[in-house]
Amino acid sequence: MNNKAITTPININSMFLGTKSENEETFSKNLMKLFIDHSQWRKNFHPEDPNIINKADMCSESFLQSTNKMEDALNELSSKLRTKMMPWHSPRYLGHMNSETLMPALLGYFAGMLYNGNNIAYEGSPATSELENELAYDFCHLMGYDDNIGWGHLTPDGSTANYEAVWYMRNIKSIPFALKDVAPDFIVGKSDWQLLNMSISEIMDILDQIPQKLDDIKAYSARFNDKEIPLLGKLIVPETKHYSWLKAADILGVGINNIIEIEVDDHFRMRVDKLKEAIDSLVEQKIPVLGVVSVVGTTEEGSVDYVDKVALLRSEYSQQGINFYYHVDAAYGGYMRSIFLDEDYNFIPFNNIHDKYSQYNIFQNEKLDWPCLEVYNAYKAMNQADSITVDPHKMGYIPYKAGGIVIRDKRMRNTISYFSNYAFQKDTSIPDLLGAFVFEGSKAGAAAASVWVCHKILPLNITGYGRLIGASIEGAQNFYNKLVNTEYDINGIALQVHPLVKPDTNMVNYVFNLKGNASLAVMNQLNTEFYKCSSYYTEAYLNDLIVSHTEFDYSDYKDSPVELISRSGIVRKDWDDIHKVTLIRSCVVTPYYNKPEVCSYYFDQFDHAVEHKFSAILKEGNFQ
Amino acid sequence: MNNKAITTPININSMFLGTKSENEETFSKNLMKLFIDHSQWRKNFHPEDPNIINKADMCSESFLQSTNKMEDALNELSSKLRTKMMPWHSPRYLGHMNSETLMPALLGYFAGMLYNGNNIAYEGSPATSELENELAYDFCHLMGYDDNIGWGHLTPDGSTANYEAVWYMRNIKSIPFALKDVAPDFIVGKSDWQLLNMSISEIMDILDQIPQKLDDIKAYSARFNDKEIPLLGKLIVPETKHYSWLKAADILGVGINNIIEIEVDDHFRMRVDKLKEAIDSLVEQKIPVLGVVSVVGTTEEGSVDYVDKVALLRSEYSQQGINFYYHVDAAYGGYMRSIFLDEDYNFIPFNNIHDKYSQYNIFQNEKLDWPCLEVYNAYKAMNQADSITVDPHKMGYIPYKAGGIVIRDKRMRNTISYFSNYAFQKDTSIPDLLGAFVFEGSKAGAAAASVWVCHKILPLNITGYGRLIGASIEGAQNFYNKLVNTEYDINGIALQVHPLVKPDTNMVNYVFNLKGNASLAVMNQLNTEFYKCSSYYTEAYLNDLIVSHTEFDYSDYKDSPVELISRSGIVRKDWDDIHKVTLIRSCVVTPYYNKPEVCSYYFDQFDHAVEHKFSAILKEGNFQ
Repeated sequence: MNNKAITTPININSMFLGTKSENEETFSKNLMKLFIDHSQWRKNFHPEDPNIINKADMCSESFLQSTNKMEDALNELSSKLRTKMMPWHSPRYLGHMNSETLMPALLGYFAGMLYNGNNIAYEGSPATSELENELAYDFCHLMGYDDNIGWGHLTPDGSTANYEAVWYMRNIKSIPFALKDVAPDFIVGKSDWQLLNMSISEIMDILDQIPQKLDDIKAYSARFNDKEIPLLGKLIVPETKHYSWLKAADILGVGINNIIEIEVDDHFRMRVDKLKEAIDSLVEQKIPVLGVVSVVGTTEEGSVDYVDKVALLRSEYSQQGINFYYHVDAAYGGYMRSIFLDEDYNFIPFNNIHDKYSQYNIFQNEKLDWPCLEVYNAYKAMNQADSITVDPHKMGYIPYKAGGIVIRDKRMRNTISYFSNYAFQKDTSIPDLLGAFVFEGSKAGAAAASVWVCHKILPLNITGYGRLIGASIEGAQNFYNKLVNTEYDINGIALQVHPLVKPDTNMVNYVFNLKGNASLAVMNQLNTEFYKCSSYYTEAYLNDLIVSHTEFDYSDYKDSPVELISRSGIVRKDWDDIHKVTLIRSCVVTPYYNKPEVCSYYFDQFDHAVEHKFSAILKEGNFQ
Repeated sequence: MNNKAITTPININSMFLGTKSENEETFSKNLMKLFIDHSQWRKNFHPEDPNIINKADMCSESFLQSTNKMEDALNELSSKLRTKMMPWHSPRYLGHMNSETLMPALLGYFAGMLYNGNNIAYEGSPATSELENELAYDFCHLMGYDDNIGWGHLTPDGSTANYEAVWYMRNIKSIPFALKDVAPDFIVGKSDWQLLNMSISEIMDILDQIPQKLDDIKAYSARFNDKEIPLLGKLIVPETKHYSWLKAADILGVGINNIIEIEVDDHFRMRVDKLKEAIDSLVEQKIPVLGVVSVVGTTEEGSVDYVDKVALLRSEYSQQGINFYYHVDAAYGGYMRSIFLDEDYNFIPFNNIHDKYSQYNIFQNEKLDWPCLEVYNAYKAMNQADSITVDPHKMGYIPYKAGGIVIRDKRMRNTISYFSNYAFQKDTSIPDLLGAFVFEGSKAGAAAASVWVCHKILPLNITGYGRLIGASIEGAQNFYNKLVNTEYDINGIALQVHPLVKPDTNMVNYVFNLKGNASLAVMNQLNTEFYKCSSYYTEAYLNDLIVSHTEFDYSDYKDSPVELISRSGIVRKDWDDIHKVTLIRSCVVTPYYNKPEVCSYYFDQFDHAVEHKFSAILKEGNFQ
């Protein structure tokens, strides 16, 4: 344990409005303060300028009518929101990766929105463009990238960050062909196969030497030339990939036919042996690998791929002259890397991690069995990827929309850049220029304000976000442990619950089954019925438990669900016939399930809900 | 004039916080109301559930420290925003297409954000998904599409809407190849050339007949097959296109080499004769046309392309068996169509338009010479396009980010759709499902709430948005007329100002020149210096006039700027040598320049600013 005075860790309870609006006074005080700051700023810009709207206008019939119309419409909106929106502030919500969002995130967004900056052009958002560029440093620290070399920015969402990653890999991997046309001296003696297997750094180093030829080179790359894309090879993803990877291959013109999906193991992590087989087979056929994607926090299971092993494999191939782009899709799990970083953003040694967690009171239960070595090693190796998707609006507890991407080498930006005459010029050294290097054409400065203020309050290490995310991870482990040890008696019928796996992060999937039932059809029906009466199918505001669900089918998952199926008492033949299992999916994002008293109360509520729901399901259905 | 009682038109002054926060009381009252509504909603979801955060927590040292940290960070944010953000609430801001945003838009966004819906999945946002689907109807009414057949949704921005349009055209135009593989009966006897020239409706009608083969067909279309894209031909855009069209060709794998740019006339509208020449030449070479894009509201000039003439040309080609996708990029000018729609969303006949404008008091100056027939006809014909980009965050006076796209035939969605197991399933008829049919992977419900509440208050016709946009258009005409009649005396030196063109919409571009100066280099330097001292280069909050600028150069604009150049007194030879002219660019979005007293005061301020700025420029520079 080091001897430094410990940084005061953040108090999580002070960061949220609260499930019962416990912090409403703080929220409303700051809300009004930010509004008045803005309002007075308006007045004090040229205080000599007269009011345009005067009191006489305000008393006119049409003015009053219009104001009334506005207030009626806002009331209607508020009513609609309260009637149908999901109460994910409550621990009774155990569904998608949502819970309350951070109070400073909401307030920061509101403040930013009043000034309505567009971070595409510095000119339209001097303050918020600077804030977003500070985020680039934060994201580099989070991911262990060198902040002098790496870079990052907000995106609309994780899907767009993934598209941007494919944009990078596709355009960069086509540069060697452009060099052939524009600067052949730099690739003398290379065969087409070698051109297709140049490393990202090698390509960047060449571009560095000929900045004056950059525009010409780009004009011969995939951005201009539709015929180069089909040469670039395959994009390899795990079976558990988010569906945006298919969209990415479609949208970027790579084509879904060029996606290869790799099997996952029964922890739902991509099998590295199968990855190696796939690459070997491609190399043998002289088909290049455009890129490989690992997922850190799979959408449906929260699983963490073996990033370290894939990174090692990549180095081994590199030594054989086979190079590909490596992206980590950590849209969901990215912020969780903060739980592995000490006060100075160093990755905490494994043998020291539990001491560190005690020191910072990361887990209430000091004996909590997390992380396993596989997850630890995967997180540690993330900085070996070329780029990483990381969504503030997931485990950053930021409201939609705030996705993000981080790249290891900011020189990569030159391969996707665009400049416009009206908003940013190539030849002026505009500070904090974002617009030239991103997918989007407008960027809400408010999103940057929202994320920036949260990073300021909650550093991306164990003193800030790590502590918050620790609460969520501990909550998920508590919930998992609770499920493992639970069996229900539904009017004399035994109902069991089988979690899928011990969660890598904070997603808990499980199936309910009647003890002794061996039919997959019956089990699927039970879980579907349970989902239907615990979701938007019924009125959420009147419900006492809300979950989400998913389906694993053979076409996506091969036989990975077999272990669960058999543990649940289902006969193998049923799986082979039906090849689809319905699961209940509970993402424990709420930061309160680390508290024993919260678990005690809400796990009871969970049990009550399960009992009365299944009581009704069994009464109505034909399960006996 | 019809005899119906007229709908009470909206009072614009009641819709904005105001340049001097005149409506601050209304704003803060509603802000608090929406917050309290939300706060009490939290408490009343299972009112029996106990508080998690209690008073003792709140008094703990760490809680207070964390709250202080939050408040310090919010203060710092507020200070940064007030120091550097652009004061575009003020009529002294005459730059980018920004001004104040609508008060209900800000309040609606805030309310929506508290509930943090994700409109990708109905499950995550039942209320706001429904609101966004109502917007689809609004957008259809705005564009004159049949709302039973058409559809629309919000996008992150105009660029993404444009990408989505290329996604549509690319995937749809590749369907005939897929039919060849999957359902050859439907295209019997068609040559490849004919397949590449099938109309959008013809393709949709075939898909309608074989829904069970849709997945197979998609699997043989461009979404899967990278080799089909290079067959699809050319994407034709005007020289004045937004730079996102280049990005779109890059990103979607079409390749910038496949973009053809058509010259514009001296109103900066795409020349239809040149378009025809280009298509004829392609047809002769048997190169297909993937799509044609018209712009309604060019980014730099606010010009409106001849949509009617392009639509007519398309019909003519269609009769010859040449079919292409037609998109209108109305990111900027789309909402302006509301000024052409009567109370019932009918397009107002041209000979009745001025009566209608009198009746609804659209313009203060009843003699205002707007619209010209070209602009009127272009807007009228927009409903002949296959899709239209329309950005609420531009002329909808909505805060960032809220772009939008509208499509004429919602069957088109089937060619780009994706379904995910965890969020939306293909086989359940989920109401208001958005996620399967859009580019993005997360969608802020708050943006839909913001736009929805504004549409509710300001209908998209002359009773609502039309009136607001009329104020902006009249303001631009007033500013243009003011410039035409202005000459300055800068310490004895005559300074003239030359507007580019009478604005089609609300963008006014102009150049300053010293009387008698024939040097383009000197004129460019003058305008660059003026821009620098009227933009972020100086402290905006201390400035008395803020503008934006642009540059027209030969590579983008050919000789279109020559008329301005010569009118400004510059010798032609200078243009031929330098081929670049710097303009001042003022988008009159502020809704107050339609008032004579506002013009009187702020045009004086403009003149003072021009005089003291040029006085300093001429003193420092070497212009004599």
